[in-house]
Amino acid sequence: MSLAAIGFAAAAEAAADEAGAVIRRYFRASIDVDVKEDQSPVTLADRGAEAAIRAVLAAHYPTHGLVGEELGGTRQGRFTWLIDPIDGTRAFITGRASFATLIALMDEETPILGLIDQPITGERWLAYSGKLQFTGAFGGRPRCRSLDALAQAELSCTSPDMFDAAQNQRFRGLAGSCRRVTYGGDAYAYGLLALGQIDVIAESGLKPWDWAALVPVVEAAGGTITDWAGAPLSLTGDGSVLAVGDPALLAACVSSLVA
Amino acid sequence: MSLAAIGFAAAAEAAADEAGAVIRRYFRASIDVDVKEDQSPVTLADRGAEAAIRAVLAAHYPTHGLVGEELGGTRQGRFTWLIDPIDGTRAFITGRASFATLIALMDEETPILGLIDQPITGERWLAYSGKLQFTGAFGGRPRCRSLDALAQAELSCTSPDMFDAAQNQRFRGLAGSCRRVTYGGDAYAYGLLALGQIDVIAESGLKPWDWAALVPVVEAAGGTITDWAGAPLSLTGDGSVLAVGDPALLAACVSSLVA
Repeated sequence: MSLAAIGFAAAAEAAADEAGAVIRRYFRASIDVDVKEDQSPVTLADRGAEAAIRAVLAAHYPTHGLVGEELGGTRQGRFTWLIDPIDGTRAFITGRASFATLIALMDEETPILGLIDQPITGERWLAYSGKLQFTGAFGGRPRCRSLDALAQAELSCTSPDMFDAAQNQRFRGLAGSCRRVTYGGDAYAYGLLALGQIDVIAESGLKPWDWAALVPVVEAAGGTITDWAGAPLSLTGDGSVLAVGDPALLAACVSSLVA
Repeated sequence: MSLAAIGFAAAAEAAADEAGAVIRRYFRASIDVDVKEDQSPVTLADRGAEAAIRAVLAAHYPTHGLVGEELGGTRQGRFTWLIDPIDGTRAFITGRASFATLIALMDEETPILGLIDQPITGERWLAYSGKLQFTGAFGGRPRCRSLDALAQAELSCTSPDMFDAAQNQRFRGLAGSCRRVTYGGDAYAYGLLALGQIDVIAESGLKPWDWAALVPVVEAAGGTITDWAGAPLSLTGDGSVLAVGDPALLAACVSSLVA
């Protein structure tokens, strides 16, 4: 592991710490539903957290690119950080501690570091140089689970409402091949996949800052993450994401999604 | 508040403490998917927790009836405890800390005490004699939220898969009248409704031990909980449940569910 990688990881952790401090101020804050969108707790938390992350990363790596969901930005040079301060705004709004702060570092078009942070439960997944660290008081071992067959798999997605009619039919095909489906979770569900609690996740409409941090985490846990065709995720992809804890089952998942 | 009610509450809390100790042992335990159903972590946690709850309640109130999801039992005499040791087994299985232990005390056919406990996050909702206590480190104020209109409402249900085709169409009608839908949560979502984070929950297929504990919690928080027709929940009901944080919106919810 290079000194550079260790520096990247320390910066990402420091940034997530700062973001968490902002987010905790607004979580389950008394919500006036009539408040203007730009003054809502989730908006304030989202923007405040992203600004905090940007400040830390810019201080450590002033030449790196910074792209965030809230505040925009563009890639520049070799290294770019992709930031989603609150992945799962609906979960945040409804008081569920299953949203996540996502920080990824791209080396050109490849995510080389991924951090998934849940600042309320205190759970954090940090992956770089092929290694995954998981910390948190709820327990769990950072390793995907092997299965004998897809029929044993726990399938998950955040919400069936994320699919159009054609995608919904394909997801139903996959669901029919798996053991059970559970809903909710956003990026946090990929963390649970990396703990061997969930076996398959299929989602659509994800932006690069939604999936970039997930790739190093899932892969370092022994899983695989692709689009619904089984091809590597890319910045020019269609936004479909398929994460499989046991890579031997990827082909069966892709087949089921076609059916 | 009567001394009897305080005694009931203390017994329910002691029972939940014991159940939590059992459940924490199995949460996110390394899961061998090939294990026999009756030796799976969730089965062991479910049965162990229910046995622990029964032991505490029987010691405090040997003449009360005890009815649990796992171990059965029948109502007897005036007071009966209804127990669901792990409401949300799918959440438990997938490592989500959004399942709950439910303990309710029925006075004849009326739930007079309700306890919702999340033993991983340490959150607990306890309602009796019209009062709600909420404890937990994630924040929140035990009071439902008022809205100007149903169009502002956050709607939730555990999974769309719980509905048959007719119910699904009715749920879609309600969803169309609300602001947003989120999925997941089981009984925990009713706790979030009692914190003013969720405004409406519509579900189906609930057994008495699934809903009895929710009634005192939701009502003490200022909300209302009925079946989909707006009628009080009863032991002979159809298993549909509609919880509304702002009772003034109940009629609009019932109308939307008919559409």
